[in-house]
Amino acid sequence: MIEENGGLMGTRHLSIDDYLRGIRERDSAALGQVITLVESNRSDDRAQAQELLTRLLPLTGGARRIGISGVPGVGKSTFIETFGLRLVDAGHRVAVLAVDPSSSVSKGSILGDKTRMEELASSDDTFIRPSPTGGSLGGVARKTREAILVCEAAGYDVVLVETVGVGQSETAVAEMVDFFLLLSLTGAGDELQGIKRGILELADLISINKADGDRLQAAEHARAELERALAILRPKGDDGWTPRVVTSSGLTGDGLDDIWAIIGEHHALLSANGALERRRQRQLLDWMWSLVDEGLRSAVREHPQVAETLADLENDVLEGRMTPTAAAENILGSFRI
Amino acid sequence: MIEENGGLMGTRHLSIDDYLRGIRERDSAALGQVITLVESNRSDDRAQAQELLTRLLPLTGGARRIGISGVPGVGKSTFIETFGLRLVDAGHRVAVLAVDPSSSVSKGSILGDKTRMEELASSDDTFIRPSPTGGSLGGVARKTREAILVCEAAGYDVVLVETVGVGQSETAVAEMVDFFLLLSLTGAGDELQGIKRGILELADLISINKADGDRLQAAEHARAELERALAILRPKGDDGWTPRVVTSSGLTGDGLDDIWAIIGEHHALLSANGALERRRQRQLLDWMWSLVDEGLRSAVREHPQVAETLADLENDVLEGRMTPTAAAENILGSFRI
Repeated sequence: MIEENGGLMGTRHLSIDDYLRGIRERDSAALGQVITLVESNRSDDRAQAQELLTRLLPLTGGARRIGISGVPGVGKSTFIETFGLRLVDAGHRVAVLAVDPSSSVSKGSILGDKTRMEELASSDDTFIRPSPTGGSLGGVARKTREAILVCEAAGYDVVLVETVGVGQSETAVAEMVDFFLLLSLTGAGDELQGIKRGILELADLISINKADGDRLQAAEHARAELERALAILRPKGDDGWTPRVVTSSGLTGDGLDDIWAIIGEHHALLSANGALERRRQRQLLDWMWSLVDEGLRSAVREHPQVAETLADLENDVLEGRMTPTAAAENILGSFRI
Repeated sequence: MIEENGGLMGTRHLSIDDYLRGIRERDSAALGQVITLVESNRSDDRAQAQELLTRLLPLTGGARRIGISGVPGVGKSTFIETFGLRLVDAGHRVAVLAVDPSSSVSKGSILGDKTRMEELASSDDTFIRPSPTGGSLGGVARKTREAILVCEAAGYDVVLVETVGVGQSETAVAEMVDFFLLLSLTGAGDELQGIKRGILELADLISINKADGDRLQAAEHARAELERALAILRPKGDDGWTPRVVTSSGLTGDGLDDIWAIIGEHHALLSANGALERRRQRQLLDWMWSLVDEGLRSAVREHPQVAETLADLENDVLEGRMTPTAAAENILGSFRI
């Protein structure tokens, strides 16, 4: 069987049925192996992963999918550890995944450093997985989306997807979750730290984190300011939800119950008005088309004739010798479109 | 020559050299014909348009490219008329273009109704052109981008690109201009009218318009509120520019000189720090790639095998019978990628 499967190191002994049994039995070792399979770039692994995922699909969809973002220093690891432990205490099974396009095998993502979530990691009801490494953001996002499905099939009813706040990773995460929580900090003056351009639009909830000790008053002030600003700038969305602002402390746990209650409110509202179903359906089709786009783009870039002329075309465009339209037609022409 | 050219109705008598001469001589009839050529979807016209544009490229790049957005009712036409006339009085030559993906030959865009800008339209130093009609936003955007180049070659040193605030048209316009002005209105309570989700991120300047008569005080109050909100939520961008908030009245002309001065400040800052050059270069390459993407997407959708199976694939994905990854691979496979 080893030879026939020819799979990934450490997973080669397992057939699809073995994997399925492991997932159904909520075996965390099997879960890790399946996610490793899903993350593999080998074409035989990918074929096996897709077959497995297709068989897991009926078991998926049951979790609250929650994105958590915030720049380094905002206290994400402590927040997730404390938040996750509370959820476990309340009877939930919690998976923590991550999207960090900057992570690599050598550096590891913030979640790679598991010692930062030691207590959470040691619970039987949690599964913590660092970001898939290497590749494009699109590749990392695909793997994390599929890992969400695997975790759901394995009975995790809360999936936290962390993003480190680099590049477009927040947008990618917002596209795979039901609810997006942005952690921020009070900064100097009125400016809030950790709110990048474009991110605010994604947030269903913003929490001013590290609201403890000396920082408490400043955090409450920032919360009120931000709430007022949001009321002006971000009225109710198409989904009927009005974004909220709270304070929290991963250290003391203050505010975490409120956050879970707000996530519950959001879930109840969007379930009742149909927006959650629409959001998930849209995400599925967007996911499909983003993979098509990415596949097409890399096929174009790797096409020998394009690869040969692309640098010259880009230069011609930048230096005003060719219109972008003509350059695009040239590229599409190489590709016989 | 008529037969050989086989061009567009009304333009068929002109060779590329005729067009070039007309543009160089700032003949507004020739300018209109060239833009009609650029807007044509006929493949022979498109080939001629690209040849012409390539020869015009050395003459382009000299205008302030300014996007002006705001939902219907915000007073855009009156604003543009008054603003444009002031610029003409100050010695500028002003072109007004529009991106309105909802416009059609029968309906016409807001600029199609030229009577709304009668005085501006009658000046010798202005050129007003309604939105290209029909087709996708991508197609409309390409035509408007090329029209900007033609206007620059014809010596217009200010190009105002209007968008009606529908769909993704603001994003498309922001991608083709140096400066993006959003017009807004005071609404009930603290909420501002006409600030759609995602649009705020694009604006270099927001003006609370119709700040005249009874509305003056409310507009000034809204301006102060919005300025405060922006200071919290949208700090300085990568380009070094901090977005501003002012009030204006297209009717009385109040605030319009300030707006032009702010546009000048922005231009001076971004020219000095290199951000304007980078912005334009990035726009050129993004434009090229967006055309490539669009060409690829329509080639995929029009591929017979994809066209036949797409609805089923989408259903399979939506109903949980197939993963988006497997569906994307199926589509790419039909397309032999």
